[in-house]
Amino acid sequence: MIGVIRVFTTEDDEVLEQHGKVISDRYRVPTINKCIPNQPLGIFNDETEKIAVPKIVELGKILQQDGCEVLVISCAADPAIEELRSEVTIPVIGAGSSASLTALAIGQPVGVLGITDTPPAIIKNLLGDLMIGYARPEGVSNTTDLMTPSGREKGLEAARSLLDQGAKGIVFACTGFSTIGLADVLRKTLNVYIIDAVEAEGLYAASLYQ
Amino acid sequence: MIGVIRVFTTEDDEVLEQHGKVISDRYRVPTINKCIPNQPLGIFNDETEKIAVPKIVELGKILQQDGCEVLVISCAADPAIEELRSEVTIPVIGAGSSASLTALAIGQPVGVLGITDTPPAIIKNLLGDLMIGYARPEGVSNTTDLMTPSGREKGLEAARSLLDQGAKGIVFACTGFSTIGLADVLRKTLNVYIIDAVEAEGLYAASLYQ
Repeated sequence: MIGVIRVFTTEDDEVLEQHGKVISDRYRVPTINKCIPNQPLGIFNDETEKIAVPKIVELGKILQQDGCEVLVISCAADPAIEELRSEVTIPVIGAGSSASLTALAIGQPVGVLGITDTPPAIIKNLLGDLMIGYARPEGVSNTTDLMTPSGREKGLEAARSLLDQGAKGIVFACTGFSTIGLADVLRKTLNVYIIDAVEAEGLYAASLYQ
Repeated sequence: MIGVIRVFTTEDDEVLEQHGKVISDRYRVPTINKCIPNQPLGIFNDETEKIAVPKIVELGKILQQDGCEVLVISCAADPAIEELRSEVTIPVIGAGSSASLTALAIGQPVGVLGITDTPPAIIKNLLGDLMIGYARPEGVSNTTDLMTPSGREKGLEAARSLLDQGAKGIVFACTGFSTIGLADVLRKTLNVYIIDAVEAEGLYAASLYQ
């Protein structure tokens, strides 16, 4: 079983299981999804990341005890990844590093699409010169904004702006884009490869699990 | 179609198609295998790598013209990867970078298993501090040595020596280990994850193709 750690709090099972469903559907592997407690707005700045770290570590340890063979921290900022790796004996995969390392394997210049002012440090540091630009869909600053009818349209516009800058592919720096299915919209509309962070974390987790 | 570039010369179709078969069987994607001309001993030092570079570039260009959508340079040294990337418009994946980047995604200390005196530069540079040691199976200095009855046994011994040094996983720095099926032998015998360079290149190539 692959344990998927969601870094916000929800009591809605469909929302909770959304990332695991992407991974299970795409790679035919079993997943179990769990979320951290008392943080309904998730991680959106340094302070909320700091508060989340011990919760992520605790949840990861429980998932290993429950029999998971691989853990995924399903957030593009890879919160608590080093802390959790030092506390469990099974592999821990992060969404942000997974997306970035996949881009490095392809080796072509990419644009990064996110919802924060700047890309997560892990993505910026790993991509280095391969990142030719960063864009945020207009009017979007949290995952709830993405769910509005215009979320996908604004995402498409932002991706186009990155291609105009010379990007050959797009890296998602927010797992919320997976929730709205933006990757398939972009793949159908633009003739470039799209690295969806949830698909990328699933790629590594599934290859370890098999 | 995924174009698999073999960096040696063979007229034996079974040998030629061996890496593509691993990728097609594992990821259910179509592959076509082609080898470079006039180099039956492949790449085994700087000079033979230099001679191979224009041949790899030429072969890659032909494979794109023939309709391939992704190219794989199936050698752990990633020979000619930047040169080929600058000459084609489709993604080019290398075995050495693929194996290393997969190890980085997992983030645990690894031992590197190869057949040369030192690991390929691309692997050493990408892994950095994550590489805790390098080993070569005793008496093996080319891929032919690996095919002998004791090849797998010596490979297992070398892998064990890396685990004794603290490695949590093993990265193959030679695609010849795939040819002798060493990954499955190690997976059955040792309780650690094995990153086979041909499987790793296939992982990225298949994810781009799908």
